[in-house]
Amino acid sequence: MKEKELIKEIIPFLKQGKDITIGPGDDCAAIDCGLDKLLLIAADQTVAGIHYDPFTTSPGRIARKLLKRNVSDIAAMGGLPSYAVLTMASGAKNRDFYLDFFRELGEEAEKWNVSVCGGDISSSNKGSAVFTLTISGWVEKNKICLRSNARPGDLLYATGVFGNSYKSEHHLDFTPRVAEASFLAGRFTNTMIDVSDGVLSDCMQLADASGMGIVLSLKDIPLRDGASMPSALSDGEDYELLFAVPAGKTGELEKAWPFNDVKLSRIGFFTEDNKGRVYDTDGNDLAEAKTGYDHFNE
Amino acid sequence: MKEKELIKEIIPFLKQGKDITIGPGDDCAAIDCGLDKLLLIAADQTVAGIHYDPFTTSPGRIARKLLKRNVSDIAAMGGLPSYAVLTMASGAKNRDFYLDFFRELGEEAEKWNVSVCGGDISSSNKGSAVFTLTISGWVEKNKICLRSNARPGDLLYATGVFGNSYKSEHHLDFTPRVAEASFLAGRFTNTMIDVSDGVLSDCMQLADASGMGIVLSLKDIPLRDGASMPSALSDGEDYELLFAVPAGKTGELEKAWPFNDVKLSRIGFFTEDNKGRVYDTDGNDLAEAKTGYDHFNE
Repeated sequence: MKEKELIKEIIPFLKQGKDITIGPGDDCAAIDCGLDKLLLIAADQTVAGIHYDPFTTSPGRIARKLLKRNVSDIAAMGGLPSYAVLTMASGAKNRDFYLDFFRELGEEAEKWNVSVCGGDISSSNKGSAVFTLTISGWVEKNKICLRSNARPGDLLYATGVFGNSYKSEHHLDFTPRVAEASFLAGRFTNTMIDVSDGVLSDCMQLADASGMGIVLSLKDIPLRDGASMPSALSDGEDYELLFAVPAGKTGELEKAWPFNDVKLSRIGFFTEDNKGRVYDTDGNDLAEAKTGYDHFNE
Repeated sequence: MKEKELIKEIIPFLKQGKDITIGPGDDCAAIDCGLDKLLLIAADQTVAGIHYDPFTTSPGRIARKLLKRNVSDIAAMGGLPSYAVLTMASGAKNRDFYLDFFRELGEEAEKWNVSVCGGDISSSNKGSAVFTLTISGWVEKNKICLRSNARPGDLLYATGVFGNSYKSEHHLDFTPRVAEASFLAGRFTNTMIDVSDGVLSDCMQLADASGMGIVLSLKDIPLRDGASMPSALSDGEDYELLFAVPAGKTGELEKAWPFNDVKLSRIGFFTEDNKGRVYDTDGNDLAEAKTGYDHFNE
């Protein structure tokens, strides 16, 4: 059982009110509160032994990762983060653990203009530790970016570099692409996702949601130091952006890109054929090779 | 280390933006989005072996409890629930577990007009299971109920009956007091809390937040079938309301109370003396006897 298949089965049980502009299945839900901007909500977890090594990761780094993963989801919708609530179910009995966690959470939250305004602390059984953060933010209606908005002929772009996220500790130390997403949203794209599950898996999400195929030019996917192409395609936790740009806007985008420290790469394009599939330029279906990181099965 | 003491230590690390009307420390945070109502946010967890018996509780009942605990937090602020996001970190590999959980979550959410519009599913290590729900809702500005608004001479009222919540399975099958809270808020009270940790512990929260003492009339606390007074004071998970009513409004309240199936009881009053303490009518400090259920230490 894969997480994606499961989610498709359970979504029909969850009825959405008229104010829910975007329901389950994108990086965030989007809600119309009667303002000229939409409220965004996303939730993500950091689980000991799954998302970090509990023996080598300080509480403060866990906190920073948890916050930034969520900030990245708001960015991927073209929005800006605003507030968050945190829950933890942990066996930790140690005051220093909590002080370190919350000190660094507070510092990281301030960087991203996020007010951590509530939550819940519980003990856990069996020494497990689960940290959950729910983030909210706002996006101007014309800037909202969905996975489903790509059109045939759109070019696929990426920020940054990919692969080797674990060994390099990028998965802990990354910078969510809030400024970059905000620059892109509405002006150059309304189709975006952040790469949490690997380039291939997240391309398949874009392809599936948009009802398009994607042709990926593997040689154009920039690799992180020490990364292999399979690790870029499948490891995940890069927290870079993938986005679709209409052909007529690519020149202007490449000229206007103001982020000198963040690579901008054209890595593929959308086609009407092969809905939901991702091919390389030689016509190989990349999903036949190796699928992305699936949190649910690992 | 107690949860309450810990929370007092960590809250200063979390800077609150100007839009945060009520930050950490009440049943919900309240946010001013520029509307005539405030956005409420609360998060709560349901942990296997802590909040339910994993060997006897069906997935659907876990889901219903989790949703209702959160709905109760929105009610305690005088608000109405609107949307929620759910995360789960669970060792369950079984499709039926998820289908049962989400089918009943969807049914319960519809009852309370809640759109479950997003979330995250992860595996967990060590066979633990943590379910987290973050709920949002809205409250009219003049109806907002805080723990801190009680004044000397206010009477303390309660809905419903208390104690024996676990054995009776009330902790799974309760009805959150949304209609009752909405009737009370603004008109009869702006000071409210829902009883999750026991009458005594939640009275101490009201007393502490309001900078008041409370005198509890133990004989007036209505007991659930099979409940003892110590269990009413300390077991928790009643999900009833405690609220302060100015002396001049008690007659009108008792006359107007329209909920025939829900007991309304006057169980004490607020005093200027003994800030943060709760006494019985014989002058005994009740915290010296037994404290409420502390999720953090159990």
